[in-house]
Amino acid sequence: MEDYFPLFEKLWRELREFTESPGSEAANRVAFTYSDHASRRWLRDIWNQMGLKTDIDGVGNLVGISGSPPYVLLSSHTDTVPQGGHFDGILGVLAATVVAAHWTESPGLLLVDWSSEESSRFGISTFGSRLAVGEDRPHYWDTTDGRGRRLADVVASTYGYPKKPTLQLHDYQILAALELHIEQGTELYEAGVPMGVVTAIAAPQRWQVSLTGQANHSAGTPMARRHDALAAMAEVIAAVERMSQEREDAGLRTTITQISASPGAPNVIAGECRATIDVRVQSGRLLKQYRSDLNEVLKNISERRGVQASLGQISGEEPGALDSRLVALLSQTLTEAGIPHQPILSWPSHDSLPLSRHLPTAMLFVRNPSGISHNGAEFIGHDDVRIALDAYYHAVRAIHRQFQGGDSHVATE
Amino acid sequence: MEDYFPLFEKLWRELREFTESPGSEAANRVAFTYSDHASRRWLRDIWNQMGLKTDIDGVGNLVGISGSPPYVLLSSHTDTVPQGGHFDGILGVLAATVVAAHWTESPGLLLVDWSSEESSRFGISTFGSRLAVGEDRPHYWDTTDGRGRRLADVVASTYGYPKKPTLQLHDYQILAALELHIEQGTELYEAGVPMGVVTAIAAPQRWQVSLTGQANHSAGTPMARRHDALAAMAEVIAAVERMSQEREDAGLRTTITQISASPGAPNVIAGECRATIDVRVQSGRLLKQYRSDLNEVLKNISERRGVQASLGQISGEEPGALDSRLVALLSQTLTEAGIPHQPILSWPSHDSLPLSRHLPTAMLFVRNPSGISHNGAEFIGHDDVRIALDAYYHAVRAIHRQFQGGDSHVATE
Repeated sequence: MEDYFPLFEKLWRELREFTESPGSEAANRVAFTYSDHASRRWLRDIWNQMGLKTDIDGVGNLVGISGSPPYVLLSSHTDTVPQGGHFDGILGVLAATVVAAHWTESPGLLLVDWSSEESSRFGISTFGSRLAVGEDRPHYWDTTDGRGRRLADVVASTYGYPKKPTLQLHDYQILAALELHIEQGTELYEAGVPMGVVTAIAAPQRWQVSLTGQANHSAGTPMARRHDALAAMAEVIAAVERMSQEREDAGLRTTITQISASPGAPNVIAGECRATIDVRVQSGRLLKQYRSDLNEVLKNISERRGVQASLGQISGEEPGALDSRLVALLSQTLTEAGIPHQPILSWPSHDSLPLSRHLPTAMLFVRNPSGISHNGAEFIGHDDVRIALDAYYHAVRAIHRQFQGGDSHVATE
Repeated sequence: MEDYFPLFEKLWRELREFTESPGSEAANRVAFTYSDHASRRWLRDIWNQMGLKTDIDGVGNLVGISGSPPYVLLSSHTDTVPQGGHFDGILGVLAATVVAAHWTESPGLLLVDWSSEESSRFGISTFGSRLAVGEDRPHYWDTTDGRGRRLADVVASTYGYPKKPTLQLHDYQILAALELHIEQGTELYEAGVPMGVVTAIAAPQRWQVSLTGQANHSAGTPMARRHDALAAMAEVIAAVERMSQEREDAGLRTTITQISASPGAPNVIAGECRATIDVRVQSGRLLKQYRSDLNEVLKNISERRGVQASLGQISGEEPGALDSRLVALLSQTLTEAGIPHQPILSWPSHDSLPLSRHLPTAMLFVRNPSGISHNGAEFIGHDDVRIALDAYYHAVRAIHRQFQGGDSHVATE
């Protein structure tokens, strides 16, 4: 087995050195900030030195082409959440770099470091990859960050869109898309296997529950005459938690993460209450059933308590089943390479979710001993990084060998 | 029966005319604002015209003395919450004025319009009456309003404290304190009686529940591995509501009115959650038992969910049983006057609560058909105002007749 680790470690240390703030033990490469841009330029230089044909497109996607079509697309992201982890995203980008550096075969590789995979700054996740598969949405561009700067202005001043065009994947002959990522959970660690072959990515959706009761004097109003929006929301929170516990094995994970109650005076019963539900669901059927069940719960609570309830959707994507032929091929390849692995569902979202709607797409996960992610304490053991790089190289080679010859794919909008 | 209503209505309409904002159907006389101060000056002029000896003390308490000691103290407040009701407080002040205007007997009346009964601006309720019974607290003076102005500065610039002294009730020979107030609930209306004789005032207390769990990725963290502070708080809210429902008849009414959860990001499980409990309780024994029961609930929730819980007290007063001899006298007096009435507990707090700790104190409530209070829609029927004024006059006279002759009281600190 070839040792891909030294190059990976060299690049990984170099990146940490110039993007880590003094005194911070976390990675801080928030999209469209100086350190994010500097990381892309640094990586472009490395890819240039390796002989790749490179470009940073109009929205910040870094592209590197090795060889001739058809290509295997190897991609992930260098950007992080604030105080993020040292492997999230960057593992996949550096693994693609390492594979390209050691690539001795003729068929092509298309490397991409996607722009703004994280939603931290503008609330839009997998921004660069969505645009690259043609999923542009007009409202993206008017979205503002915490300081009121428009996404369109930030992107235009940094990367030049729309004057400089965005990478469009349907311009390329691509066999398949592959992404290596750290698991943001402990399923692999607990199963005692270093690698996972992702079979599907949960739909990330955000819903809002709004309850309207009646504000009244907290001392003067008897319990039986109340229409307390916050007490009603407590029932909703409990129901959402219980429904998620009961349906988690079936592929549903939901969380109420944000809450506000008004008027918020210490001696006034809450007349209004709002909450955000983070919904992650592995199938469209389950999503539909859950929405129906939740509406039933809201109806029951609102009738019993004399409050008005509404359920709105803030954002929503469909779940993405990854390519079953690729899943089978990766499993077989890892087995042949002697790398213990198992199928795994991804609850968090990744660039591979928009890609999977347009290309045969697969993901490999590496185990995460603590389950911590989006946090400087995120960690992968060096031996596991070695295993992952080896697995990734084998996977790319297997796809090229298996998929070539009339089996190429062109991304469709 | 003498008709006290014309004078009451004349004064009430006059006050509404110059303190109502154009376009607002509510009363807006928030403590230490222009309209609050103007109301006191207007009322002082009226009391002067009636021949009372008047003063506005160093914190804004308006005092009017009629006749010689011993006195019956007739008091309430003109200040309101923002967008407040047209009877809350002012009913008692104007009723005292009407009684004094029609008073044909020799013994004395001490009228007081208390400063800042409402806590809207500085969070401190019954401010003027607390100071007048000697319950000054150093921290009051550094409390700031929403614009950062210190209470001490506002009071000093408006009324001159400490250069100008505050009324001290122990300087006066007082037989008893009496307050007439609108009920801030519908108990009397539902019972079909116009008047209530208050037997006790619930302890107003504010507690804070703080829960600390673990912030983590809402997609990546399995349900069984969560320490969700908001989901834990939902259990607390449900428990507080249930405990209040079960104990309301015994004299407990509790409400969670304010909540905040952090970090408040849409895809992060809440690591911390805080909530304010408004506690109203009619006996010290029940208060102690409730605190113990709630701590038990918190212990159970925190152990089961792996969160840390703490219960703190923001503010707290003891419940006040009103003077039983006065309660009996007022009941007898109303019966003799042919006015239907019943005993009633006061859940909201009033100036009579601090007074009751130092003086024999009684309150009369007038029925409130809608139960709405702290709201421009607050309402009493004119016939009920007539009945209330008549009852109030009879009550003052009965106290003077019954309590005179060696039975006078001096307020003690």
